Formats: sequence, C-alpha cells, structure tokens
Amino acid sequence: MIKKIEFDGFKYIDGGVCAAQGFKANGIQCGLAHAGAAVTNKKNDLAVIIADKECSAAAVYTSNKVKGAPVAVTKKNIADGKARGVVVNSVNANTCNADGPEKAQKMCELAAKEFGLEPTDFIVASTGVIGQPLPIEPIEKAMPELCKGVNYDGNAAAVEAIMTTDTMPKEVAVEFEIGCKKCVMGGMLKGSGMIHPNMATTLSFITTDIAIAPEYLQRALSDVVKKTLNMVSVDGDQSTNDMCCVMANGMAENAVIDSENDDFDRFENALYVIMMNLARMMARDGEGATKLIECVCAGADDIKTAQIVAKSVITSSLFKAAIFGEDANWGRILCAVGYADAEFDINRVDVDLASEAGRIAVCRNGAGVPFSEDEAKKILMEEEITVLVTIGDGEYSAAAWGCDLTYDYVKINGDYRS
Amino acid sequence: MIKKIEFDGFKYIDGGVCAAQGFKANGIQCGLAHAGAAVTNKKNDLAVIIADKECSAAAVYTSNKVKGAPVAVTKKNIADGKARGVVVNSVNANTCNADGPEKAQKMCELAAKEFGLEPTDFIVASTGVIGQPLPIEPIEKAMPELCKGVNYDGNAAAVEAIMTTDTMPKEVAVEFEIGCKKCVMGGMLKGSGMIHPNMATTLSFITTDIAIAPEYLQRALSDVVKKTLNMVSVDGDQSTNDMCCVMANGMAENAVIDSENDDFDRFENALYVIMMNLARMMARDGEGATKLIECVCAGADDIKTAQIVAKSVITSSLFKAAIFGEDANWGRILCAVGYADAEFDINRVDVDLASEAGRIAVCRNGAGVPFSEDEAKKILMEEEITVLVTIGDGEYSAAAWGCDLTYDYVKINGDYRS
Repeated sequence: MIKKIEFDGFKYIDGGVCAAQGFKANGIQCGLAHAGAAVTNKKNDLAVIIADKECSAAAVYTSNKVKGAPVAVTKKNIADGKARGVVVNSVNANTCNADGPEKAQKMCELAAKEFGLEPTDFIVASTGVIGQPLPIEPIEKAMPELCKGVNYDGNAAAVEAIMTTDTMPKEVAVEFEIGCKKCVMGGMLKGSGMIHPNMATTLSFITTDIAIAPEYLQRALSDVVKKTLNMVSVDGDQSTNDMCCVMANGMAENAVIDSENDDFDRFENALYVIMMNLARMMARDGEGATKLIECVCAGADDIKTAQIVAKSVITSSLFKAAIFGEDANWGRILCAVGYADAEFDINRVDVDLASEAGRIAVCRNGAGVPFSEDEAKKILMEEEITVLVTIGDGEYSAAAWGCDLTYDYVKINGDYRS
Repeated sequence: MIKKIEFDGFKYIDGGVCAAQGFKANGIQCGLAHAGAAVTNKKNDLAVIIADKECSAAAVYTSNKVKGAPVAVTKKNIADGKARGVVVNSVNANTCNADGPEKAQKMCELAAKEFGLEPTDFIVASTGVIGQPLPIEPIEKAMPELCKGVNYDGNAAAVEAIMTTDTMPKEVAVEFEIGCKKCVMGGMLKGSGMIHPNMATTLSFITTDIAIAPEYLQRALSDVVKKTLNMVSVDGDQSTNDMCCVMANGMAENAVIDSENDDFDRFENALYVIMMNLARMMARDGEGATKLIECVCAGADDIKTAQIVAKSVITSSLFKAAIFGEDANWGRILCAVGYADAEFDINRVDVDLASEAGRIAVCRNGAGVPFSEDEAKKILMEEEITVLVTIGDGEYSAAAWGCDLTYDYVKINGDYRS
C-alpha cells in the first residue's frame, strides 16, 4: 500500500464509506459476468450504500459525449440536492445499449423497494464493458439479500463490488473537527483503466456526517475534483461512466454549512484529504502499474499552467515507459513539458527527480546538468517517484499523479473483454 | 512491407530521395553511439543529400517549445527559400545542450567545405537521445569520406543513417507528368517513437526535379502535412526535433509553378502520394507495432471535426491495446470518439471494422449491434485494420494512422537510453 499523506488536524481511521455515523453498506456477487468474459472471478459485483437519514448530495460526471445510462438517471435523481443511497454494479457499464436508461432506472426501483424509499432517492452507477446489454435478472434476484445485509461495517463488501481490473480495494476515512464537533468523512473509489478524467473520474463515493447545504456541497466537490481526481491519468482515455458522488447526512450536528465561511474551508480541506488519497491510490493501482509517479509543477504564474504542465508529464507514454525501466531519461520529461499547451519560458525550466532514496537535479534552465546515473537509478528503484518541474518564479504549483507503463498494461488491455 | 495505395497517373519507382534527377546522397557510420548506449549496432548514423543545382526549399517543424538546436539553424538557412543539401545524424538529438546551436552550425560548415558551398546552403537535422552533448569529432572526421561518396544511388545508405528504433527503412518515389514533362518526387522518413505530430513530424526529406517557386513549395507542404504526417500518432509524444523538408531543383524543366494553377494542384497531389505513403509506413513501424491501424471519419460537417475524431481513435491506448489483442472491443472506439474535442451528435455515430478479410458493422446510431465474434476476429487478425466512423451526413472525411500498443513498445522504451 502507498503512504498516506499526513495533514495537521486529520486522523486516518478505518471504515471507508461506513466510517461516518449513519451509513450502512453491503456488496454481493450477483453473477453479471458476461459471455466468455475473463472476469469470472468470484468477487462481488453489486453494492448498495444507504444512509440512516436524508443526505445533501452532489456529484460530478464524465464529460465524454458517450455517457453511461446511469449518468443521466443519477443527474435527474439528485437534481434536488438530496439522496439516501447508492446502487452500483461492476462488470457491465450499461453504456451504448438501447435499453440502458430503463435498466438504470430499474436498479433504482429495485433498491428503493427494499428500503421502502423512492427510486429518485438513489444514485445509480455502473462500470465494466461498454456496449453489451446489462442483464437485469441477476441484479433483481440478488437485491433483497443485498439490501437485507447492509450494516455499519459493510464497506469492505461494497468496495469489492466496484472493483474491475483493480488489484486492491481503495478506501480511506478521516476524523477531524468542525466547530468543536467530531466529524468523519470516508470514501471509496474504483480504478484502474480508462482513467484520464476531465470532469470527474472513475467511480467514487464519499460519505460524511457533516451538515452542509447541497449548494455548498456541490461547490466544494467541484473545486476539489479539479485538484485531485482530475489530475490523475493512467492511460489518457476518459471513461464514459465517470462519476464522483458525495452524500452528507448531517449527523455530526455541526452548524449547517451554508456560506463560504471557515467551516466551509475546513470541509473543503477534509474533502481534499479524502480525494487526494483516493487519487494517489488510483494512480498507483493503474492497470499494470508498478510505481506511483507524482509530478509537481511549481513556479507557475497561474494554477492552470501548473496543472497543464504537471499533467502533460504524467501522461507521456515515453516517460512512463522510461520510469518502468528505471531510466533517468529526463529528456522525455522536458519534451512533455515542451508540448504542454501553456505559456512559459522553456529556457527557465528546472527538473529534479526525487523519492525516499534522495533527490537529484537533472536539468537547469532547460539544459541537462551532469548527475550520477547510480544515484538516479537508486531514486527510480523506489515505488513512489516524484518529478519536480519548476517553470519560473510564479507562486502557483500543482501536482498530478500517474503510473509507469508496463507489459502488464498491454496484457490486461489486450484481452480485457474476451 | 505494407501496401502502397495506387493513384491514377502516379507510378511507384525505386530510388527514394535519389529518384528525381540531380540528387545524390550518401550515409556512413561515423560512430556517435553514446556512453553505455543500446544503440551499438553497426548502422549508419550520418547522411548527406546534395542537389546538382540550387533548389527551392520549404520545411515544417515541431511546435514543441523544446526545440532541437538544428531546427533554428535550418530555419535561418532556408529563410531565403533556397537550399542545396541536407546533413543529418541519428543517435543524438542535439537538443537541450548549451552548445547545441554551435554544433548544428558546425555540421553545416563541415558539409559546405567538402562541396565548396556556403553553410547556409544546408538543411541540418538530428534525431536520437535528448540532453546529451553531441560529440562533433566523429562527424568532423567522417565528413570528407561521406561527402566524397555521394552518388545517384546513395538513397539506401542515407535512409539507414536516419533510422533510430525503426525496424525498416522508409522511402518511396513516384513518376508522373506535369505539362507533358516527366517529373519525379521521392522521399525518406524516420519513425518510430515520440510520434504525435502537430506541425510536422519526425524527420522527413523529400526531393523532386519539379520547378516550383519557394512560396508555392511552402504552401503545398503546409497543406499536405496536415492531411498526412500530422494525422499519425504512435505514442502521443510530440518530438522536439520534428522536421519535414522538401527540395525542388527544377531539372524536369516544367513551366515554373508560381501560382495556384492546375500544375500546382498536380504538385500537391504528388506530395500527398509521397507523404501519405510515408505516414502509413511510419505508423506501421511504430515502436513495437504489429499492425497498421487506419481510422477514417466520414460524414463530418467540416474537415477539422473529421480529423479530430479520426485522430482521437488512433491515439487511444486502450483501443490500441485491444487491437493488439485482436479484440473487437468497439466500446473503446466509441469512447474515444466521445471524448474527441469536436461537436457532433453521438447518437448518430456508426462504426465498422474492416480489413482484407472483410467488413462488419459493430455500432449503429451510438449503440451496439449484434455481430459475429468469429468474423470480427478474422478481420482483426490481418496486418492492416481500418476503422470506419461515420458521424453524420456531412460531406467531409479524414484519415488518421496509428498502430497497436504492444509489449515491445514498453520494452523498447523501458530501456532505450541505457
């Protein structure tokens, strides 16, 4: 597992989406494996999360023109800023099928019936293969057992159900205070291919017991996603089903956050801690990855420039392959900095490579500087690599996260479907 | 070797950059292999092309902010629209080195001295590793022998000298008529990584005996590069040293082309035939590639939309890996169509897969249609695969060329440098 980054005032705890009070979850194997699928393992493929009381809800979605059917249904259902639960499946993305919308709707109806709620109380999501009709029968059959089994420790069963090519579950939770009230926020996320977000990325569900008005929940999510999930790239492909949802049930009994006050800032910080950790986990577990690569671009005149440069580096296939080979081929870093679509002086660019094994300068003012290949090799042998790119003396910086490009990426994607 | 596409009135001939009358070339191994390099094979690494008389000259260059030192020197040297020769090395890109410009200049001086010409008569180019000082001594030592050896059959020795990770030389030539005069045009090109052009791509040199004014030569080149080399992507990385140059010596004795008349159109067609064939060769020989992928986007309301969509498909890592696996995972095609940055109705998109083994429909109006997996497999087992994407009933279409993503791409780039 990768390191969690420590932040003052935030304590990491267990429990994922069930860490905050008043959230139950469950996952089950309903049997969605498609004809001839490689995905025949015995993992869960259907999950629910349910809140003890009505939540403020907010979400961000893929900006791909091709959208999974669940995206439209979820948008409609949380248009009022409210939700009670999530129903989600893996294996099949329910995308590019004529009957997709009615099946996404049906998933909400099936869950609602079990909890005595309305279908519009549910967020619905799917992930998996595109363009194969979703078999609704296994979902219908499994729903009663799935919903009966929800419990306050159900996060592990639920997170397993959203995994596709993920090699490890991704969840995180923190405890902190807002206005002297103990608050908790937790989340889960699935990777690990078709990851190159623009609006949001992948499937991610976050729960908290904080009291916050829907408008401010949406504002915080839209802000934080830009600095976290949107700064990850695994393969440059933006999914059709990306969705990140937050539900806040208010049970922490803090004063409801309904303006951009200190509590709002605190809330945003908590969301950043959760989503930044999930972003790092997603990058580290990118398909076939053996290393987490973080690129920090500093010295920019504005945040956008820093983000574009950092993301250009971690998106470069050539650079990613070099990192897999533990080769300090910094020319490829500078090349990716150079074709980034942003304005800055390439002759002022400095590049350093760093990891737990040390830090070395490889480029100053756009030109190479002598360095020890042995030292570079030692740095690149670590599992978490940082590339530091300074492009001037501006005050803005941004981080982006990616992974190395390996044989296994090709293997996984050469025969994912059949 | 991949198929050459036949065009009425154009006959493929041998000879590459020496096919047109009045062009000599040569290549030599001067020994540029860098310390600890994998590139220790005995291939040529330094070439010249020299024209019997002064040529009209035009070029397009990389738009990467990081530019190889030779780019600036060449720009200056052909600012007058004239050139006599080309001097080019592989192994070392002469990029991101403080002494790069003076060494690029020195290469021109060394060649000029041998032919009794001015340094400004030369186009200079380099390709290879970025950020390692170019050793000028081997070049200086080899130049007399290289230049003494130029001859009218020297194209094979020259094209070998520009190869890096290329597995095969890339050259093509055609014979045709302009105004009842027999004309010839030929070209050579190097691939095969860091290929994702914007302005131009890779190194490519084209020679012709046609008489054309520099202004119109530049105009034709700038037009045709957009439809050919700029429509190729191997790995999404845009090189720092990309350059495509054309030299026209006028020895065909056609009426000088100095307006956009029929002869100009004919000239553009010839340039298209040469550059389109070179583009296909470059894609097919992409690093690690086993297949050529052509994506044709039709039915667009404008050419730009067609180009953006076609290029988005052949750039998708997930799609490229699926083609390597001969997996008809058309959802990934539609996904890449969907995130293309262009305006069209995704619900009208049709997708077909084709090759010499046949053609099948896999998607109609944005949704999957049943197809035979066996038939799809047969189609995808071929070496040249075409993806046809129709996005409406507009009259514009565009083609883009790429290759599959394979284990060998990772292998080649995991330890290219050391």
